[in-house]
Amino acid sequence: MTLQTLTQNGPAIRPAQREEQRGPRLRGIAVIGLGYWGPNWVRNLYQMQCAQRLVCCDFSRQRLEHIKALYPAVETTSQTDDVLRDPDIEAVIIATPVSTHFDIARRALMAGKSALIEKPLATSACEASQLVALARERELTLMVGHTFEYSAPVLKIREIIQSGELGDIFYVSSVRANLGLFQRDVNVTWDLATHDISIILMLLGRMPLEVSCHGQSHYRKEVEDVAMLTLRFPNNVIAFVHVSWLDPNKIRRATIVGSRKMLVYDDTALQEKIRVYDKGVTMSPYYDTYGDFQMSYRYGDVHIPRIEEPEPLKVECEHFVDCIAKGASPRTDGQNGLRVVSVLEASERSLRNGGRFMPVIQGAID
Amino acid sequence: MTLQTLTQNGPAIRPAQREEQRGPRLRGIAVIGLGYWGPNWVRNLYQMQCAQRLVCCDFSRQRLEHIKALYPAVETTSQTDDVLRDPDIEAVIIATPVSTHFDIARRALMAGKSALIEKPLATSACEASQLVALARERELTLMVGHTFEYSAPVLKIREIIQSGELGDIFYVSSVRANLGLFQRDVNVTWDLATHDISIILMLLGRMPLEVSCHGQSHYRKEVEDVAMLTLRFPNNVIAFVHVSWLDPNKIRRATIVGSRKMLVYDDTALQEKIRVYDKGVTMSPYYDTYGDFQMSYRYGDVHIPRIEEPEPLKVECEHFVDCIAKGASPRTDGQNGLRVVSVLEASERSLRNGGRFMPVIQGAID
Amino acid sequence: MTLQTLTQNGPAIRPAQREEQRGPRLRGIAVIGLGYWGPNWVRNLYQMQCAQRLVCCDFSRQRLEHIKALYPAVETTSQTDDVLRDPDIEAVIIATPVSTHFDIARRALMAGKSALIEKPLATSACEASQLVALARERELTLMVGHTFEYSAPVLKIREIIQSGELGDIFYVSSVRANLGLFQRDVNVTWDLATHDISIILMLLGRMPLEVSCHGQSHYRKEVEDVAMLTLRFPNNVIAFVHVSWLDPNKIRRATIVGSRKMLVYDDTALQEKIRVYDKGVTMSPYYDTYGDFQMSYRYGDVHIPRIEEPEPLKVECEHFVDCIAKGASPRTDGQNGLRVVSVLEASERSLRNGGRFMPVIQGAID
Amino acid sequence: MTLQTLTQNGPAIRPAQREEQRGPRLRGIAVIGLGYWGPNWVRNLYQMQCAQRLVCCDFSRQRLEHIKALYPAVETTSQTDDVLRDPDIEAVIIATPVSTHFDIARRALMAGKSALIEKPLATSACEASQLVALARERELTLMVGHTFEYSAPVLKIREIIQSGELGDIFYVSSVRANLGLFQRDVNVTWDLATHDISIILMLLGRMPLEVSCHGQSHYRKEVEDVAMLTLRFPNNVIAFVHVSWLDPNKIRRATIVGSRKMLVYDDTALQEKIRVYDKGVTMSPYYDTYGDFQMSYRYGDVHIPRIEEPEPLKVECEHFVDCIAKGASPRTDGQNGLRVVSVLEASERSLRNGGRFMPVIQGAID
Repeated sequence: MTLQTLTQNGPAIRPAQREEQRGPRLRGIAVIGLGYWGPNWVRNLYQMQCAQRLVCCDFSRQRLEHIKALYPAVETTSQTDDVLRDPDIEAVIIATPVSTHFDIARRALMAGKSALIEKPLATSACEASQLVALARERELTLMVGHTFEYSAPVLKIREIIQSGELGDIFYVSSVRANLGLFQRDVNVTWDLATHDISIILMLLGRMPLEVSCHGQSHYRKEVEDVAMLTLRFPNNVIAFVHVSWLDPNKIRRATIVGSRKMLVYDDTALQEKIRVYDKGVTMSPYYDTYGDFQMSYRYGDVHIPRIEEPEPLKVECEHFVDCIAKGASPRTDGQNGLRVVSVLEASERSLRNGGRFMPVIQGAID
Repeated sequence: MTLQTLTQNGPAIRPAQREEQRGPRLRGIAVIGLGYWGPNWVRNLYQMQCAQRLVCCDFSRQRLEHIKALYPAVETTSQTDDVLRDPDIEAVIIATPVSTHFDIARRALMAGKSALIEKPLATSACEASQLVALARERELTLMVGHTFEYSAPVLKIREIIQSGELGDIFYVSSVRANLGLFQRDVNVTWDLATHDISIILMLLGRMPLEVSCHGQSHYRKEVEDVAMLTLRFPNNVIAFVHVSWLDPNKIRRATIVGSRKMLVYDDTALQEKIRVYDKGVTMSPYYDTYGDFQMSYRYGDVHIPRIEEPEPLKVECEHFVDCIAKGASPRTDGQNGLRVVSVLEASERSLRNGGRFMPVIQGAID
Repeated sequence: MTLQTLTQNGPAIRPAQREEQRGPRLRGIAVIGLGYWGPNWVRNLYQMQCAQRLVCCDFSRQRLEHIKALYPAVETTSQTDDVLRDPDIEAVIIATPVSTHFDIARRALMAGKSALIEKPLATSACEASQLVALARERELTLMVGHTFEYSAPVLKIREIIQSGELGDIFYVSSVRANLGLFQRDVNVTWDLATHDISIILMLLGRMPLEVSCHGQSHYRKEVEDVAMLTLRFPNNVIAFVHVSWLDPNKIRRATIVGSRKMLVYDDTALQEKIRVYDKGVTMSPYYDTYGDFQMSYRYGDVHIPRIEEPEPLKVECEHFVDCIAKGASPRTDGQNGLRVVSVLEASERSLRNGGRFMPVIQGAID
Repeated sequence: MTLQTLTQNGPAIRPAQREEQRGPRLRGIAVIGLGYWGPNWVRNLYQMQCAQRLVCCDFSRQRLEHIKALYPAVETTSQTDDVLRDPDIEAVIIATPVSTHFDIARRALMAGKSALIEKPLATSACEASQLVALARERELTLMVGHTFEYSAPVLKIREIIQSGELGDIFYVSSVRANLGLFQRDVNVTWDLATHDISIILMLLGRMPLEVSCHGQSHYRKEVEDVAMLTLRFPNNVIAFVHVSWLDPNKIRRATIVGSRKMLVYDDTALQEKIRVYDKGVTMSPYYDTYGDFQMSYRYGDVHIPRIEEPEPLKVECEHFVDCIAKGASPRTDGQNGLRVVSVLEASERSLRNGGRFMPVIQGAID
């Protein structure tokens, strides 16, 4: 079955009469990969009605049928080429296994289509750079799916940090753990730490100088299922990232310690994801004659800001379509994706070299 | 005021008529150092009535008066030498700053007194070894105050591990954090990680091969207030220890992941300190023709064993007195203290060498 | 627009080729009322594909359009009569305001359609009895939407109670609170306590003898927004139900105390909804000569059974369709709905009579 | 052994040289009853050194010996009369079973001694009134041990309410539950609800008009081990108090709902006992032409004020001694104790009359 045929079956996913208000802004958009994450993209695109045609692509006929049953108006195909050759398709969302990101994204960009690629952007800084260059050359939108950079709590934390409320940031300690899901082609750092790195880079607004990574694999050779990353930033800022596919509890928790206040972000909390602690250490401005160490602790109130939480994926989805329509650069553009991949790559080198600190390519940043 | 005088004032801390049942087993015991931890020793010794005389020693007259007001029957002195010269004093408990442990302990042992030294035993493996040798030579009891090795939850966890319920241990991830208390003479690893190392060594029953440590100091030069240790054990067992004096929450939490089950130990919980999760990954026994990766997850019940919790310090206290009386070797003897110091020393070397893994002297173990 | 027209627009919601496996078992089903709860029914029916036609009915054109956009294959109408006159529609799900339940349900049954009515079944035992009689007369399936009786944790609790693990049940204390949503036509007991009563009746397997209710309205006259019910059962079993629309936290928590063990059910917990405490009081079998009161406490382990949780609404939905197809009586049949309404009615009488205990009509039970 | 003898043994519990600063303000004070609560009083009095002599009185020689071992400087006796006849004893603290409160307190007041009586003050309003009258007549300090009225969190909540931050109080819902300890002579309302009533009266600053109580006994006839009280106050304010000796968890939790904000007080929390929710319902000032119900919900931040927590018993202890010394009336004076007993008495009447609301004697208030 070709897309041609599919198009005849499928009605436009948005009725015409609403076009004036916020109408479908794209002729067509495709989601490639209907595994774990892809269906969430389909659901959002379907409900947003941002394109006249929505095409879903996966090798598995079963996945296609499942999606078709849920969203009858979508078109389906098992051939990526059908999507890439279809002139109506202006943009693709790539939610395939990590190892295939580069190839599919490159071909999509070559075919003149904007691309949103699930995190991580690629498996190496070299690949990521090529995608960045290609998108720039072709004047296409290239976006990476760093979902948390669109989530309300993370945006709120950035706002709090930028307001100076926390003072100077001393360190970040982040944990992302659960039981499974093991990835088939990458280890736990490329799977889980990607999020922490993306969040930390966004919050600190800078690249780490060097990265160390220790890890261990218990089930598949060289596919670490537990790891600990240490990132050193300028000004003695340090960040620890602990990731595991083997933890009995689902943990998504970051502690951000500043010179004035401290903040804890727990993404598994239903309601109170951010807690700001008015706690800290107060240094006295001088040391007395006996060289005494003057320090006291400040304990204070805790404040839990209310956060309105739209689904991050929806925000991300709208941002992608909006950037394509306006030709604007997404917040999580290719450069952003490249930065995170650069850190992961340095981390991987460290992991293969006994945990030694490895420099992060700073040139990766604009 | 000499101890002689004090003795005349102070009545025996236990009335004679009870002597038959479990009477005071020592003529005299002294607590040196009445800062943060010392008073807890005094309270326990006082209530246990294990010695005919209980002497408290501190430089600060104010601390001595405070203790005297709480426990009128104790004797007080500001001179360590008073204690060491007193022939009635059979044992001393040393709860002074870490940097003084070695000197006071050495002098106590030389004076023929048994010694319990607060953790860590000393500031180097070299010092610790000397204390071990000295105690052996003089046939005196040398004990280190690794309190957690006497705590009911840790003992329960050891029992669970030894029963094989968790299967093979894959990794341990331990966090010990709070706001303050900064130590004056050692960094956060010597202060807090000592506990985690002592617990992990006890649970795993073996020494790590090598240790890496990353840390950062924010308030006092070279006195790290946050750190992350990675310990590599034989058989690919790995342990992470995260310690901080700068965390808004008090965290004492360890996750122990085994091949069969997983266990979480939260020492801040009032009631339910240990949770055993019947969760894990199940590998299929063979790989199929296509080399496919066969793995599934097992989710199951959670079990929270009831734990009777006597105060660990009391258990420790009784154990010390018992070992002196019987001439037995304590569970946390000098060797045990030396082992933990060896790990801390390797960690310190790593910290000063960019976090590189440093071997742990294996010879330290019996 | 008539249903006739709608039918022509709308394709069958399930493709023909699947009919063999579990095919659409009904010609048509309608959801009446698309407010808060109705759309959940539509979603489940849509995904289950249990009927060839799915019709949605609401006064509000806006709600209809919203549903149509999400589920293009549904038919919509703003006229209940369209639904009731349509010969294809074999069953209706009534998710309208409580005060309209009786009238719509009665007309649906009169029109020969099976009916599932959201809780509570009706606003009085009299009305509820009429529906029960009517359904029996017409041999139609009448079901009430007591969702929790289909939820995995509640079913698990019933299993635990029936196994005798808790011993004799002494009392149940249940809290259901949150901020909003105020109902327009009924007070908080008819809105929230319905669930607790339905659960308690199911778990205890018997009707209360009498009910007392205290409450207060703060925003709308005689529409209580906070209330406390006490239910007295045979054998001195007592149950307390506290409900509120004015609580800052969402609470769904029941404590079930038995002579052997105790159980806490927290429906807001993500993972560990049921905790079984091996705690209790042990009476000694005799009183000694001095009439002394011999009692001791048993503290033990906590056990958290793993519960697989399918969406209760889906289970409920399948059960409804199944009962219609087989002509079987649903687990939450009209009698069940009548029982809960009888308790609510007695509670209402108590509320209007200073909280005095009011007998519950026992005749209501089969 | 008479007190005379004891006095000769026991040294003054405070050395003379400190008398200038805050010296012992009483010649002698006695604690009668060394069961569950009495030893806490002894410990505080001992450490405060507020009297030259501290006498402990209990029938049980074993209890006396235990206390003597812990606090060698106390005097002990098994005869209440020894205490009451001793001219040095200016005040007694009565921590005996509830049924003995009245008799011992009456005799103490008759003997010219000030008295602090553990809650509840007496077993009836009649008895309580007599004590109040007697103390007034003899110009002695009469205080009741409503500990929570001296606890930092409760004082903080009163401050928050009085500031108007919560708006008008709508209702209070309080739960106090745990497993055991059963009292021998009173039911769970006199044991546990006393605290809630004392707190609620203090916070609301007024007496309830009427009280209803439902309860059930499972272990001892007519000694209810679980109960629910409803208190009706002027202005439609309502309070629910749920108490149980048969709950697997220790719960001490009160929710206070106001027209502007809501507050939750959890006394079992280690750190964050009070949470203020900026949540509420907003009524629009008018109803539109169609009589529509205009209401919306306000969700906002949560604020957790830091609370410094001295031991309430210590505060209470100092307050008692201070009041005796100054001849001032305690915050929790006899009237206060009488008010709480009046509510408990009405509750008891309700319990014995099928839960009917019983009026509370308003004359009990000054």
